[in-house]
Amino acid sequence: MLRNIRTIRIEWCDCDPAGIIFYPRYFEIFDTSTTALFERVLGMTKVDYLKAFDFAGHPVVETRARFRQPTRFGDDIAIETRLVECAQSALRLEHRISKGGALAVEGFETRVWLTRDAAEPRYVHRRPIPKEVIARFAQAATEQAAVEHADTAT
Amino acid sequence: MLRNIRTIRIEWCDCDPAGIIFYPRYFEIFDTSTTALFERVLGMTKVDYLKAFDFAGHPVVETRARFRQPTRFGDDIAIETRLVECAQSALRLEHRISKGGALAVEGFETRVWLTRDAAEPRYVHRRPIPKEVIARFAQAATEQAAVEHADTAT
Amino acid sequence: MLRNIRTIRIEWCDCDPAGIIFYPRYFEIFDTSTTALFERVLGMTKVDYLKAFDFAGHPVVETRARFRQPTRFGDDIAIETRLVECAQSALRLEHRISKGGALAVEGFETRVWLTRDAAEPRYVHRRPIPKEVIARFAQAATEQAAVEHADTAT
Amino acid sequence: MLRNIRTIRIEWCDCDPAGIIFYPRYFEIFDTSTTALFERVLGMTKVDYLKAFDFAGHPVVETRARFRQPTRFGDDIAIETRLVECAQSALRLEHRISKGGALAVEGFETRVWLTRDAAEPRYVHRRPIPKEVIARFAQAATEQAAVEHADTAT
Repeated sequence: MLRNIRTIRIEWCDCDPAGIIFYPRYFEIFDTSTTALFERVLGMTKVDYLKAFDFAGHPVVETRARFRQPTRFGDDIAIETRLVECAQSALRLEHRISKGGALAVEGFETRVWLTRDAAEPRYVHRRPIPKEVIARFAQAATEQAAVEHADTAT
Repeated sequence: MLRNIRTIRIEWCDCDPAGIIFYPRYFEIFDTSTTALFERVLGMTKVDYLKAFDFAGHPVVETRARFRQPTRFGDDIAIETRLVECAQSALRLEHRISKGGALAVEGFETRVWLTRDAAEPRYVHRRPIPKEVIARFAQAATEQAAVEHADTAT
Repeated sequence: MLRNIRTIRIEWCDCDPAGIIFYPRYFEIFDTSTTALFERVLGMTKVDYLKAFDFAGHPVVETRARFRQPTRFGDDIAIETRLVECAQSALRLEHRISKGGALAVEGFETRVWLTRDAAEPRYVHRRPIPKEVIARFAQAATEQAAVEHADTAT
Repeated sequence: MLRNIRTIRIEWCDCDPAGIIFYPRYFEIFDTSTTALFERVLGMTKVDYLKAFDFAGHPVVETRARFRQPTRFGDDIAIETRLVECAQSALRLEHRISKGGALAVEGFETRVWLTRDAAEPRYVHRRPIPKEVIARFAQAATEQAAVEHADTAT
């Protein structure tokens, strides 16, 4: 299963008067983490992959999160993002945020592939994920599995 | 069932390069809508009810949302927030965002009652919701049902 | 001098762990206030006026603010926005935020008129403000002055 | 002159429908950059230095910025933050954001030292910066100048 891990620090500006992260910020973190996974697999930045595949974005149509323990400003957290499904019409991702090794937040999201309307660019349409993109994700997952198997076997 | 409706405009600063609302903003909208419901029932602002009941907040421990159609800057939306459960240990709320009468987003959240640690105020503890608060919510629901029944009967 | 006043409540999500507004939020408030002034004068929403005048936006090129007293969540504030200059190449605006009648924040900003590059829509160019727009702002200022003079004379 | 440099990527969530950064985000970047400088000099995170020096924060009382060229999502930017004054009552800082070596944004800010009211912790008071803090900043500036002089001399 394809996955990416990144680490960030919870900043003052992420937190609310209770001194803990304001929970909508987690969805910003999830969004940036999904982009980071896509950028790594596709080998280009989001700016470039939106152009390369001529689409308007991969918006979330459904999401869910469980907040198990709060994080507060100054905390360093790790976000592990896994692509658990990449089918014809939808991408499903899971995020696990941990702090000091302990699970803090779980996130789940379903995304779709949108293209911009030719006549009225403000409007967008849901489209099948290009086969080339699905193939690249599958290949990346295979390569990652091989590396992880090798690591385990050592 | 206790409910509150408020309307807001989606602003430029809520939207992303795709021209639609950046979805984490919906959770900010949900949070402010929950506060608006509480403020109306408790008859005081959040600043004051946190002090009156001596607690640190009512953070979300689990949330979920379905995004059925996008909203874009300049859209006027209505948010209907309903308190669907107010038990000893948890508050469950549902939000329905509509645009031009059509459902755009559904949100679901579970909140708990937190008090601040006496010795180390940065830390918080989950506590039962005060009986006075539960009673006020129940009374408000009864009053609202009576008003709505009267409206229907007319 | 053309001006517009709007009132908002400082929300929980606007505030930081010190319990006061996180100051970058004021610039979001200024931006929305400028849009509100433009929408009123041009008689259409920002979505529509960007299309009507075929431009990409009126970004800030320079801004300044003085924070005289903090605002905290639950505070109701008034924002008075004045257009102090609308010349060929730049718009200058001033914002005054008050709380309970007392001045809390002053903001100053200079904006320019941008159009989108025909060949590469991601890029934008600075252009003179259309004469029609300058004329509408001038007319609105004259009308407002007449109303305010009448109010004063009464 | 004491300075710190950090690099970040402009993310999708930082940008507006024009595809460029929404300018209030720069003030969030400035705020985090100031904290990064303080953390390095004081040798502890903001969480810890607020406790160590028993104060409520170092809020901005005046700020100013010039936006020379836009940054857009995917851009990697460098922020150089310099402490240009650390007097009895105020801290003055300057930020320079560059993209690909070219100056994009300049920021200027004046901060004060706040302590929390003993009787009513929601309220805060302006206080002189502790001598220990001023001494540490002076020492860090001297050390940095020595390192930079050595680098230049080599």
